[in-house]
Amino acid sequence: MHKTTVDLGDRSYPIYLGIDILERLADVYRASALPSSVAIVTDSNVAKLHLRKLSAVLHRCGIHTSSMLVPPGERQKSLARANGLYTRLLMQQFPRSDALIAFGGGVVGDLAGFVASTYRRGLPFIQIPTTLLAQVESSIGGKTGVNHLLAKNAVGTFYQPRFVFSDVRFLSTLAPRELICGLGEVIKYGYLDEGMFKFLERHLEDVLRMNLDVIEDVVFRCNALKAGMVSGDERETNATGGRMLLNLGHTIGQALEVLSNYRLRHGEAVLIGLQLELMIAREARLITSADATRIGALLQRTGFEPRPQNLHLQALIKNVFRGKNKPRFILPTAIGHVIATNEIEQSLVRHVIRSFSGK
Amino acid sequence: MHKTTVDLGDRSYPIYLGIDILERLADVYRASALPSSVAIVTDSNVAKLHLRKLSAVLHRCGIHTSSMLVPPGERQKSLARANGLYTRLLMQQFPRSDALIAFGGGVVGDLAGFVASTYRRGLPFIQIPTTLLAQVESSIGGKTGVNHLLAKNAVGTFYQPRFVFSDVRFLSTLAPRELICGLGEVIKYGYLDEGMFKFLERHLEDVLRMNLDVIEDVVFRCNALKAGMVSGDERETNATGGRMLLNLGHTIGQALEVLSNYRLRHGEAVLIGLQLELMIAREARLITSADATRIGALLQRTGFEPRPQNLHLQALIKNVFRGKNKPRFILPTAIGHVIATNEIEQSLVRHVIRSFSGK
Repeated sequence: MHKTTVDLGDRSYPIYLGIDILERLADVYRASALPSSVAIVTDSNVAKLHLRKLSAVLHRCGIHTSSMLVPPGERQKSLARANGLYTRLLMQQFPRSDALIAFGGGVVGDLAGFVASTYRRGLPFIQIPTTLLAQVESSIGGKTGVNHLLAKNAVGTFYQPRFVFSDVRFLSTLAPRELICGLGEVIKYGYLDEGMFKFLERHLEDVLRMNLDVIEDVVFRCNALKAGMVSGDERETNATGGRMLLNLGHTIGQALEVLSNYRLRHGEAVLIGLQLELMIAREARLITSADATRIGALLQRTGFEPRPQNLHLQALIKNVFRGKNKPRFILPTAIGHVIATNEIEQSLVRHVIRSFSGK
Repeated sequence: MHKTTVDLGDRSYPIYLGIDILERLADVYRASALPSSVAIVTDSNVAKLHLRKLSAVLHRCGIHTSSMLVPPGERQKSLARANGLYTRLLMQQFPRSDALIAFGGGVVGDLAGFVASTYRRGLPFIQIPTTLLAQVESSIGGKTGVNHLLAKNAVGTFYQPRFVFSDVRFLSTLAPRELICGLGEVIKYGYLDEGMFKFLERHLEDVLRMNLDVIEDVVFRCNALKAGMVSGDERETNATGGRMLLNLGHTIGQALEVLSNYRLRHGEAVLIGLQLELMIAREARLITSADATRIGALLQRTGFEPRPQNLHLQALIKNVFRGKNKPRFILPTAIGHVIATNEIEQSLVRHVIRSFSGK
């Protein structure tokens, strides 16, 4: 079992990672001096597959558990759903000394983390991510949140978990679409780190074939990278680097996700965002043709084929620029290197999107 | 102008206090390295009396301001109202680098603080309290929150302001009822500190007559006491002392407030709670008759006369005990000394409430 530490002073915590490690959760939990009563927030898909196992492990070490199920899907990340969870916690007079576990993918983690950070001004919180996206990205770093009709993740907190516990075995039940979503975030780390990029060049097909040993290696590398970036910039206040670089692929990706009314999943939208932002970097001559081609080739090997004809150019431009003359893009400059820039002209972005969507 | 520091490592902040100091806000603001654009959250009463002045001071030092008004009253502390504020911030594309000012009493401070802590995962936040209750108590320490139908302050965060700025002059427009509300919290500090108690014994009538010099002294003493208690126990995790002692008067007070459907104001309910908890301490022989009489005499001098015949004994007992056999009470043991105890029998509480309400 790997252990990676997110170093944040008195809010530091470990990420545990391995294959078939669920039984060891009992030891980890006991060693963490956490309360003997927890509520598990999960979605109905994850509950069907894995909730009984998780509860059994906790029961065996004397932990009392209750569970709260939400339907799957990004629409559950809402203030209304959070309020529903508050109501259920209040109905059972859940004390603020008990703990909350997020058990699922990014949606469950963001929603449960928000509730944990705001119910009675904060409960001890644990992340047990069950998707590739959540294991490499969303379960780490303490970003919680719900969406608002007017903006994604508009309401949230920075609230660190006590620990993250990632059993790669959970990924073996992932739908292909969920794997692609995780790959979006994984390849993002390839943009940020040359070692990661080369590893993916060698092993992408192993990931697609669900080779769990390789995937464990991928998750471990991503965790180490993210832990380092979060440690230096917990609240994303570094204006030129730090955590903000993790928004690579998201300037366009998030706009696409919102415009698709969340029919595009987050990771899928990030994959398209990575593609378009690579093209923007190329068009702005920030990256050599050779490096851009190499990155483009990796993206193509994911097999993900968006339908670019569905992009609404005007709406996308409007959402990306949102009244700003020049929004911030994180763009690749070489394999494993990116920069943050506010210097990209709207006409260039327009040109790239048009050529991508074949219009 | 007094300056008291709440000592919380990298979340430390000053409380500025004085009479007619509003003009000096400009210097304080500039010295704090805060953004040049702020949104002021206030209620319609405070806006009518003071908003123009506050805005003018900020404009003169080059700060751009916008304002968001909420109706007055405890009912505004709701998730629905918070959501309304998110919407307005999103509509104006309010960036997370700009600041939020809470300008008003406890309700505005708790609500605006909650929104500041959760909008885009946190805005720089400033408290400018305009009531006695807010200046002595709620603006300090970072407790934010909204009410849920099932419980007061059920949803909230710990989120410290960058500074607190208390101009005692604002209090000269307070309605008598608001002054009484503040006195509830002030006398609470008299229970906690002998010096404060003796000061109030000497000066209570000066406070009631709105002698601002005396009130400034009262606020300063309360600030110093609260700053010390918060510094040692930011998130109220000390189970035997610390911040939790500030819940004196609240075990019963908060239950009364909820049961009255918020017709009783918070400070009024705390005053009744202080009275009843004094009687409980006396009945449990935790305090001498002499000290209890002396404290009771001070309470009486506030002139606040609750209508105890309106207490619904069964509902109150049920709300205080909420399924627990013995809830925690903070009870006075001598002038300036209290203890936290879980050893009070329900029958004793029932007896005290019955004798208080004359049933």
